[in-house]
Amino acid sequence: MVQRVAVIGAGPSGLTSIKGCLDEGLEPTCFESSDDIGGLWRFKEKPELGRANIYKSVIINSSKEMMSFSDFPPPADLPNNMHHSEVLLYLRLYAQTFNLLPHIRFQTTVISVRQKTNFKVTGQWEVETESREGQRETRDFDAVMVCTGHFTQPHLPLRDFPGIESFQGKYFHSWEYCSAEGLEGKRVVVIGIGNSGGDIAVDVSRVAEKVYLSTRSGAWVVGRVGPGGLPLDVVGSSRMDALIRKLFPSWANTMLEKKLNQALDHKLYGLKPKHGSCNTVFSFFAQIPVVNDDLPARIISGRVAVKPNVREFCGSSVVFVDGSTIDKVDVVVFATGYNYSFPFLPSALQAKCGYRLQLYKHVFPPALTSPTLAVVGFIHSFGAINPLAEMQARWATRVFKGLTALPTEENMMKEIEKDTAAMYQKFACSERNPLQVDYIPYLDSLSEEVGVRPNIPWLFFKDPTLALQVFLGPCTPYQYRLTGPGKWAGARQAILTQWDRVFQPFKTRVVTEPKPDVTHSSKLSIIMFLSGATLLCCIFYNKLHFASYFSASSFPRSLQLFAG
Amino acid sequence: MVQRVAVIGAGPSGLTSIKGCLDEGLEPTCFESSDDIGGLWRFKEKPELGRANIYKSVIINSSKEMMSFSDFPPPADLPNNMHHSEVLLYLRLYAQTFNLLPHIRFQTTVISVRQKTNFKVTGQWEVETESREGQRETRDFDAVMVCTGHFTQPHLPLRDFPGIESFQGKYFHSWEYCSAEGLEGKRVVVIGIGNSGGDIAVDVSRVAEKVYLSTRSGAWVVGRVGPGGLPLDVVGSSRMDALIRKLFPSWANTMLEKKLNQALDHKLYGLKPKHGSCNTVFSFFAQIPVVNDDLPARIISGRVAVKPNVREFCGSSVVFVDGSTIDKVDVVVFATGYNYSFPFLPSALQAKCGYRLQLYKHVFPPALTSPTLAVVGFIHSFGAINPLAEMQARWATRVFKGLTALPTEENMMKEIEKDTAAMYQKFACSERNPLQVDYIPYLDSLSEEVGVRPNIPWLFFKDPTLALQVFLGPCTPYQYRLTGPGKWAGARQAILTQWDRVFQPFKTRVVTEPKPDVTHSSKLSIIMFLSGATLLCCIFYNKLHFASYFSASSFPRSLQLFAG
Repeated sequence: MVQRVAVIGAGPSGLTSIKGCLDEGLEPTCFESSDDIGGLWRFKEKPELGRANIYKSVIINSSKEMMSFSDFPPPADLPNNMHHSEVLLYLRLYAQTFNLLPHIRFQTTVISVRQKTNFKVTGQWEVETESREGQRETRDFDAVMVCTGHFTQPHLPLRDFPGIESFQGKYFHSWEYCSAEGLEGKRVVVIGIGNSGGDIAVDVSRVAEKVYLSTRSGAWVVGRVGPGGLPLDVVGSSRMDALIRKLFPSWANTMLEKKLNQALDHKLYGLKPKHGSCNTVFSFFAQIPVVNDDLPARIISGRVAVKPNVREFCGSSVVFVDGSTIDKVDVVVFATGYNYSFPFLPSALQAKCGYRLQLYKHVFPPALTSPTLAVVGFIHSFGAINPLAEMQARWATRVFKGLTALPTEENMMKEIEKDTAAMYQKFACSERNPLQVDYIPYLDSLSEEVGVRPNIPWLFFKDPTLALQVFLGPCTPYQYRLTGPGKWAGARQAILTQWDRVFQPFKTRVVTEPKPDVTHSSKLSIIMFLSGATLLCCIFYNKLHFASYFSASSFPRSLQLFAG
Repeated sequence: MVQRVAVIGAGPSGLTSIKGCLDEGLEPTCFESSDDIGGLWRFKEKPELGRANIYKSVIINSSKEMMSFSDFPPPADLPNNMHHSEVLLYLRLYAQTFNLLPHIRFQTTVISVRQKTNFKVTGQWEVETESREGQRETRDFDAVMVCTGHFTQPHLPLRDFPGIESFQGKYFHSWEYCSAEGLEGKRVVVIGIGNSGGDIAVDVSRVAEKVYLSTRSGAWVVGRVGPGGLPLDVVGSSRMDALIRKLFPSWANTMLEKKLNQALDHKLYGLKPKHGSCNTVFSFFAQIPVVNDDLPARIISGRVAVKPNVREFCGSSVVFVDGSTIDKVDVVVFATGYNYSFPFLPSALQAKCGYRLQLYKHVFPPALTSPTLAVVGFIHSFGAINPLAEMQARWATRVFKGLTALPTEENMMKEIEKDTAAMYQKFACSERNPLQVDYIPYLDSLSEEVGVRPNIPWLFFKDPTLALQVFLGPCTPYQYRLTGPGKWAGARQAILTQWDRVFQPFKTRVVTEPKPDVTHSSKLSIIMFLSGATLLCCIFYNKLHFASYFSASSFPRSLQLFAG
């Protein structure tokens, strides 16, 4: 029986994996090569080899309610889109509240993870580690959770750029970027319009002479600030929105693109994307958009110029595929993404299906006789990674314990192939973007396995107030703590107070008016209208008694923590 | 007869005044205390006493087509919202093209402007100047144009902030601000949410620990990037828009505020303004909005917190009127505006009407027996200052020459009083914002005096293509060069090509598509639709021959310059 679990990495995925183990009564030991938690969110003044790196100015793309762990709502006073230091603060509060730190061995790097010779019988693993002082140690574990993340191995495709060897300026990968210091007055070319490329172009443009942002395929650009100034990802991220998109995918995409172009004509700005590798016509959803509030203003003011793909380098000049040339380029930043690999894993477990790893539901290698190894947090979606990783961890720990069974290897393989084909049909996947999942459907699918998927129709009978928020409100992770294993008594209250926590950080200057302003956002109006309508329907048809369901639940834990 | 004109200051107003003089065959001598043209737009590494100062990151609020001089369209490749260095470049091109530099005496400060003893007969002035070496000189001039601008005398109202003497941190006026250097990791309070306050708060927030933006009255915040990504001020700035606002002011304001709140709920963000001193209900137009593309994203990410007015300072703490306190404040920036005064002018000419100077149409002191002194560019509006200053200069030079007469002193005084009452009724004027005019009506009123006001109904008969652009397109300054004194042959073409120059800087990466995208902007669609409809009406009712009017005119001068 599984008891001891090795968790590799103490980033968000690692932390929630430790928590998942503890919740299931397992004994996690987390190996973290650095001296602190946070992974990607641990800011380093200088990038550290083999580890993810963020730049000084990073603000998280997801808003706090959408990126939180399901039983740990963020403190109400934290801003909606947190600075990296605040994301780390949130992770610290999480680790502290659930007492995760004692389970972490810092400054300990995992060298290899090998199946024990008796794996077929025991399902056990030998995990070899090395301390900072060079001391090696091998320990046996009943299961392993791989939480090493995405952004550790920069992809620098110099071969695709003829003449780069003759380039007289400086070049480096976006992974190395920390701040614009030293780039004052320079002419800078940023290659690649992922989120890093966009961020760095904007950041550098505040001090550089000029920044050229080169992109092969373009991208949709959205801001963190959504309609009415609400965080974009709490608007349009409800289950109802997902349902509409599922029922009318083409229409939903057209409407969305129209709206995006009404705000920013992507063709005019040279940004309109072509997802060449994608077979779908549903362009917006084919690739995760660039989240950047500042890029449009930097373009209109000429601080950033969008350019096509680079054809070649020539001395200090950069030649683009449209024949245009920028001379006297001082610096080139390759925001060309990341490779992924798991060097410590047996190569058999690194088999691929297309570009992606051969993992059942992106978690379990199907070829193992015992499902005692899980990859957690190696996932891309239109939503935040934390809730996905948490759900993967909850599922994995239950599989480890035998409480949830996996299909046969054959069926898992079939499922992976089917799933991969569907993914490539729908999303613009590539070697650099090997996978992408639909946020709510993926969460629902895993939560079904765990037994915590909210039953919406039933909820409309049982607790219509809650059901309305669950169906029409942003699909926050608390929804997966309402029922089943890991049920949290504060989940209902966390959902009912989620808008309060969204509004709270804005209350630094309260505008008082004689009459209340009802234009908070179109979203809220819709919610209120639909709430009323649905409530009336419920009352009329079902004649249910609601009163008993309106009792207050316990307050979110992190709030108690802050209050204390 | 007026011949020699002293122009004080070689900023944009001074340059266009020199040009105005030359166009009227006058002999301008411009006195500029610094060693270069540009005024406000001449960036200084360190602020210079008595001169306007801008910070490193300044981007002009107005777009290039709206801030250009009427016979000098900006080069097509310049960005729509220029960096200060590009604004200066544009001014250099202007000065170069019209050979203005030989008329400027640099490093020469005007000490005093006095009426000559025989002023009643000659209308002449004694202008005393001082060179950098301290050499004083007095010369006689037939007329004087005062072009010294607004932003030279910081207003630091320390008396309004009890306890400031005990404040342990550093404080300074926004005038002193150059860049965020030295504010890394600091806690900064910015007082005042004018354009400087907003800009500085955003700029500092990229490096500071936290910025608190304190505002008494709030403000409407708009971006430079308007609908569809077009420059905001080319959308909604047509004569038709102005007409609609005039006919239905309340409705227009409500619609606009609704739209602004749909994009950014100003109440939620603590920004919703109260123009206390303003008697009008038409809130948006009561005060020039804060133009800031970045502020919403800085607020949602908590980098900037909006705060109410400061009640007092206490050690290193700042106490706000809502009772909240921010401790350990390192730096306070007073973005509390500017005073104005013209120390070199006779005090009789500095009489006030309310907060404003007693100037007929904001240009002429009414008490002079000869109208040989004009103030140019001392004006505030929802539009760019350059076209306003240019029109004032064109008018002033014609008044100097006696080609246009002023009313009697009594009538001018009546007009000033009436005008002031109307202004205070409509706009939130104060000591710091002493005046504001309606952009198009003010331009039209002066152009009427000059004899260059476009006759729109007549234009619809004569040149409907042009008329449509003049009426429905952005009200660009070229409209005032179509006819009358100073008529420019390139004006028609400049108007018909203004959208090309708006689109040109975006063409750094051209997105090719099989079908043309017709969603450029709702504005364009409306223009196209109305163009068609109006053309049909014209054809039907007037049976005019259009063909002869479609011949190409000369190209804008600055474009020829760039082509060369």
